[in-house]
Amino acid sequence: MTNDLFSYSTPVFARHLRILDDIVGIAERHANDQKIDAAALISARLYPDMFPFTGQVRAACGTAQRATARLLGLEPAEAADNDKTFEDMHQRIRGTVTFLFGFTEADFAGADQRTIDFPTGNGSTPLTARAYLATFALPNFYFHVATAYDILRHNGIPLGKRDYLRIGSEI
Amino acid sequence: MTNDLFSYSTPVFARHLRILDDIVGIAERHANDQKIDAAALISARLYPDMFPFTGQVRAACGTAQRATARLLGLEPAEAADNDKTFEDMHQRIRGTVTFLFGFTEADFAGADQRTIDFPTGNGSTPLTARAYLATFALPNFYFHVATAYDILRHNGIPLGKRDYLRIGSEI
Repeated sequence: MTNDLFSYSTPVFARHLRILDDIVGIAERHANDQKIDAAALISARLYPDMFPFTGQVRAACGTAQRATARLLGLEPAEAADNDKTFEDMHQRIRGTVTFLFGFTEADFAGADQRTIDFPTGNGSTPLTARAYLATFALPNFYFHVATAYDILRHNGIPLGKRDYLRIGSEI
Repeated sequence: MTNDLFSYSTPVFARHLRILDDIVGIAERHANDQKIDAAALISARLYPDMFPFTGQVRAACGTAQRATARLLGLEPAEAADNDKTFEDMHQRIRGTVTFLFGFTEADFAGADQRTIDFPTGNGSTPLTARAYLATFALPNFYFHVATAYDILRHNGIPLGKRDYLRIGSEI
């Protein structure tokens, strides 16, 4: 029997962060090849009060890291907001993947019994671990990965859904 | 013991489609209040070869409907591509939610034993039911909901992450 709190969290976060790492690499190569100022792309946003590309990548990593910590009953680490280059983003993503791979299914034994009480805009909202993962962490994680992709597409980076989904690849 | 093929599929698809229905309603009211041509908003895209707003809503509904059918071993229905108005989108979303609520956890007994072989850009890719849900259906579903939201944000519709996540609300 699978432990869903594991099966739908760290392996899928890690898989999609590796996809995001490759998407960052595609943007990086395109900027180099086309002599585009990296900073123009890295700081691009869909609207002035939305996160820029760096912020979407940071939020995807942060959501994966905090969700994993909370499901395991650990205190989520604070992540600095200081990415300035493609390399900074690669390092953040790879560090998060390493963190995620530090846990196995056995670590999630009993996770379904946890209540997760996390800070939100309106104070805090206690949720069961499963509701937290299924209705907050996963939609929030994919929101930031998809919006990072959308920012690049909006700026003409040659990407397609195949790059976002990578169907059939385990990791 | 929960059946994860159910817990992470129809209830979460239905929950986020209701959220999307309300987001469509916010766009609709904003267009009315600001005397914006509805067609201009409905046909907005982030890039010329991406789906417009209607297409993102249609794809979110289609992903939820097809994923549910495939997990249950049913033939996915074809959905027409003919939405022209906000009302058309509301009807599509609500029809999909009704379809999703037609199934219960009991219907998903044995779903984890299915292999799902579905058409992709490269022919077809057989996946276990769990891999299909966790690495294709969920990231694809949230991609389309998030991109629908991103199109509206890019066009100045007054929305925030609270509208996308609706933390703490079951449905």
